[in-house]
Amino acid sequence: MRYEEFTIEGRNAVIEAFRSGKPIDKLFILDGVQDGPIQTIKREAKKHDTIVKFVSSERLDQMSETGKHQGVIAYAAAYEYAQVEDILAAAREKNEPPFVFLLDNIADPHNLGAIIRTANLAGAHGVIIPKNRAVGLTATVAKTSAGAINYTPVARVTNIAATIEALKKEGMWFVCADMTGTTMYDLDLKGSIGLVIGSEGDGVGRLVKERCDFVASIPMKGDIDSLNASVAAGVLAYEIVRQRMS
Amino acid sequence: MRYEEFTIEGRNAVIEAFRSGKPIDKLFILDGVQDGPIQTIKREAKKHDTIVKFVSSERLDQMSETGKHQGVIAYAAAYEYAQVEDILAAAREKNEPPFVFLLDNIADPHNLGAIIRTANLAGAHGVIIPKNRAVGLTATVAKTSAGAINYTPVARVTNIAATIEALKKEGMWFVCADMTGTTMYDLDLKGSIGLVIGSEGDGVGRLVKERCDFVASIPMKGDIDSLNASVAAGVLAYEIVRQRMS
Repeated sequence: MRYEEFTIEGRNAVIEAFRSGKPIDKLFILDGVQDGPIQTIKREAKKHDTIVKFVSSERLDQMSETGKHQGVIAYAAAYEYAQVEDILAAAREKNEPPFVFLLDNIADPHNLGAIIRTANLAGAHGVIIPKNRAVGLTATVAKTSAGAINYTPVARVTNIAATIEALKKEGMWFVCADMTGTTMYDLDLKGSIGLVIGSEGDGVGRLVKERCDFVASIPMKGDIDSLNASVAAGVLAYEIVRQRMS
Repeated sequence: MRYEEFTIEGRNAVIEAFRSGKPIDKLFILDGVQDGPIQTIKREAKKHDTIVKFVSSERLDQMSETGKHQGVIAYAAAYEYAQVEDILAAAREKNEPPFVFLLDNIADPHNLGAIIRTANLAGAHGVIIPKNRAVGLTATVAKTSAGAINYTPVARVTNIAATIEALKKEGMWFVCADMTGTTMYDLDLKGSIGLVIGSEGDGVGRLVKERCDFVASIPMKGDIDSLNASVAAGVLAYEIVRQRMS
């Protein structure tokens, strides 16, 4: 369902999609196939840094909507991705210290859409998501973002931890959300900041967490474990907004 | 989909559901039908204060999953509702000033579930929703609440504005979220408080807003209009938490 309008099936269709510059989220290729067109598709995928999964024919048959996948199915993104540099440039243009959301494997398109919406309204300059194991800019995300996707740049990177390292060199600080952290009200969250939000099930990954300067916790006064990921992102983002305004 | 497991179709099934005390969210009856069993169902609906809609046979056929609705379809709630008094009692038991969420027509079950989850973790004593024109405690809501529905009482009332009036007499204050209000950081949100969240499309209704003591706005620094309803509820709820903690 999620990718309904954006599934591209068959060898020629996929090759054309790459060549026309359509952003492809993920590529599924029948395991073991090595012929010419498939080699071409793999080269295009490599050139565009697209994630490729090699899957069984049963899996492809399940995913296929046309029944004519010819051993290859691509998931195309609904929107164009930005570069991390575009996000920093947006902050410079506004003459503001960068405020960036980094999402460590958000899987639910409704959450991603809601978080992009929040990023826009909290005055963040952009959102960074990982290429692998996460949802991309699909039609559902675009819809749930309530139009924010047209204003707030979303960049996709191969490795969130490496991106944090690179951005630290530009003078940014990073805070991630985790139950084990310091109560967010007690942290200084002003300045040039990256807000790191973990995945719905597992939170922030260890490698990413180790690179964060602060670990912030949202006070939990109830019986269950955690807030919805997009609500947690909103609560933390607005604590940053409050501190920036004060 | 939403009501898949909780649709009750046919005259006897609906009469039995009422008599066994199953909470019915809404009742759809074929317009113009006046026979004995339908009269019995209408009496039961009145007794239980259930919303009844009179609809065309085309509409019923569309809604029907069994194809055997016999002119009546009921939507049953997945969970039992609490009473407003139960919520106040929960606050008294914890020896805390009441902190209650009031939802003015949230329509999306994912939003309702996420808000109940937030209410639980923000330490609210309960959630009040309207009977009419809003989603009830369906299976999707239960799932999205991540278990919070088992801890945080949810009461359903006929009229949110009247409930606010009644609770004001118990010493509660009410704050609603609206773009036209005072920045939330500048309001005193301590004490015995009801947080009123409007519907996804239209915000808080006029009659409800007029009864609120404060109108709080969340700072909006972006290009689009409003946050997702469950994110807005989270951001405001945690401003209340912050003020209560300080």
